[in-house]
Amino acid sequence: MTLDKVVTKPHDALAALFAAEMAAMNEVIRRRMASRHAPRIPEVTAHLVEAGGKRLRPMLVIAAARLCGYQGDQHVNLAATVEFIHTATLLHDDVVDESDQRRGRPTANLLWDNKSSVLVGDYLFARAFQLMVETGSLRVLDILSNAAATIAEGEVLQLSAAQDLATSEETYLQIVRGKTAALFSAATEAGAVVAGADQVVIDGLRDYGDSLGIAFQMADDLLDYQGDSGATGKDVGDDFRERKMTLPVIRALAAADDEERAFWQRTIGKGQQVAGDLEQAQALFARHGTLDSTRDTAFEWAARARAALAGVPEDPVRDLLADLADYVVARLR
Amino acid sequence: MTLDKVVTKPHDALAALFAAEMAAMNEVIRRRMASRHAPRIPEVTAHLVEAGGKRLRPMLVIAAARLCGYQGDQHVNLAATVEFIHTATLLHDDVVDESDQRRGRPTANLLWDNKSSVLVGDYLFARAFQLMVETGSLRVLDILSNAAATIAEGEVLQLSAAQDLATSEETYLQIVRGKTAALFSAATEAGAVVAGADQVVIDGLRDYGDSLGIAFQMADDLLDYQGDSGATGKDVGDDFRERKMTLPVIRALAAADDEERAFWQRTIGKGQQVAGDLEQAQALFARHGTLDSTRDTAFEWAARARAALAGVPEDPVRDLLADLADYVVARLR
Repeated sequence: MTLDKVVTKPHDALAALFAAEMAAMNEVIRRRMASRHAPRIPEVTAHLVEAGGKRLRPMLVIAAARLCGYQGDQHVNLAATVEFIHTATLLHDDVVDESDQRRGRPTANLLWDNKSSVLVGDYLFARAFQLMVETGSLRVLDILSNAAATIAEGEVLQLSAAQDLATSEETYLQIVRGKTAALFSAATEAGAVVAGADQVVIDGLRDYGDSLGIAFQMADDLLDYQGDSGATGKDVGDDFRERKMTLPVIRALAAADDEERAFWQRTIGKGQQVAGDLEQAQALFARHGTLDSTRDTAFEWAARARAALAGVPEDPVRDLLADLADYVVARLR
Repeated sequence: MTLDKVVTKPHDALAALFAAEMAAMNEVIRRRMASRHAPRIPEVTAHLVEAGGKRLRPMLVIAAARLCGYQGDQHVNLAATVEFIHTATLLHDDVVDESDQRRGRPTANLLWDNKSSVLVGDYLFARAFQLMVETGSLRVLDILSNAAATIAEGEVLQLSAAQDLATSEETYLQIVRGKTAALFSAATEAGAVVAGADQVVIDGLRDYGDSLGIAFQMADDLLDYQGDSGATGKDVGDDFRERKMTLPVIRALAAADDEERAFWQRTIGKGQQVAGDLEQAQALFARHGTLDSTRDTAFEWAARARAALAGVPEDPVRDLLADLADYVVARLR
């Protein structure tokens, strides 16, 4: 796999191809955010939902359904469901502890308070749940309820793994699945299920979503140390300051001598960070080649995503999905 | 309706009658709280779920199902679902804003932090969702997804109505439905649905749960000012300090002269409370008889709950449910 072939953005091509359905989904979102009794809700959500982002998750639903020949309109509701779940997760991620605020962590919830973030997030979850029930498919409900549990489990796991130097690559992968891959794979699987695809196609699209999500999140975790804040929307070193055990740190720690181990113990384990520590962390990554090896692993997951599409019928949309897998890691140096 | 007839606690009688099913439900809860990947979750939830409380909501599911002649075991899963949703709601209610803590509000989440409360609550919601899907009943899913939306809407509404002197009795009722009655009525309705009851019976049990929940919450709001902290688990005046627009305040405000209105504006509207204000509020309630009128309204809702059972087949369980309606307001002076 080379990067040379990535000349246009597959995401933009998919957005253009499914423009009508994405517009219909936006309309569902707008309508379902409305609350007769609590007008404050759309105020809070409009900002988040309409800020847009790439709408990658709902697009995966629509692409998977259409790739499987779906002609109905349930995939639009399903896409809105997935976007609601994603937005609710973002809102709940915004909740901070007083201690975090004291540590000078850049609070994501500048616009509204903890309580609103939690309750409006709950409202979006409930709306997502209602939309899912309307699809009338118990199988879709099963997929999405399992995804919701994996997401919540991964979030709790991330909370307890942060600052824990004993975090393994296996645990990291579980966190990444909860954080990102579970909703990606639920999106592609549910899209295929709603279209009534064969089981082998459903499995292929689910595995594609899983691997794509892992590649995507691994790339994000790497970019956090590589300084491309334009691509991630985060400042360089945010994860370091929040003492997150992402793959570069786990691997640097595995290769560490006693002195280096003491460095990680102090900065990540105890959170005693001083000026120059981030630079020192970068130097240790360079010494052990852990950013390179993380990039290699992200590329492996992207390749797995592409390979998972082997059993999916030949189609231009399939090719775009394959290109998307390359694209999410193409931003890595 | 007189209180004289309430000689035993109908709740205890129901608990004894359905002891085996409640035990089975506890086992479902214990099993489903477990997380292979995040062992911290049962630690957090065990405290809340096992602290027990009255388990009123799951008991309503079981009582409704059995009253309708149900012989299967889905009502046990459904009862666990309802308890999970209730517990998740409590966890999310525990989330506080820094400003609340600064105001010296007694923080409910002393045992764990905001972030854990949110994420573990989300995990319980997801688990509830999975359990529901396992019932295989789209109708049950419809009932519970609508309840979840009403609950979240009511919570947001309560947040924006707090401190807002313009809050109407209608808005108050909507908040009470979200806070309490929505889950009560979903419990009784879903119990009847899972049992395959006739529509008229389903409607009766749903209306019963709705009215029971309203009576229950109104009684709670009244007791907050009547000093029976043993019954509510809250300190007298908590709602006043949190500037909640409950029925006694709404009615006292409706009857207020200019000076009294200025008092409410200062204490509830602006939150400028000084020593003696709670006593002054109590004096205004007494002057306008608003605690008495709130009690009368709570009794009306209890009577409505009893009346809603008219279309439900004659049965000892039906009588216990009717007595339960009296019981939730019998604690009022």
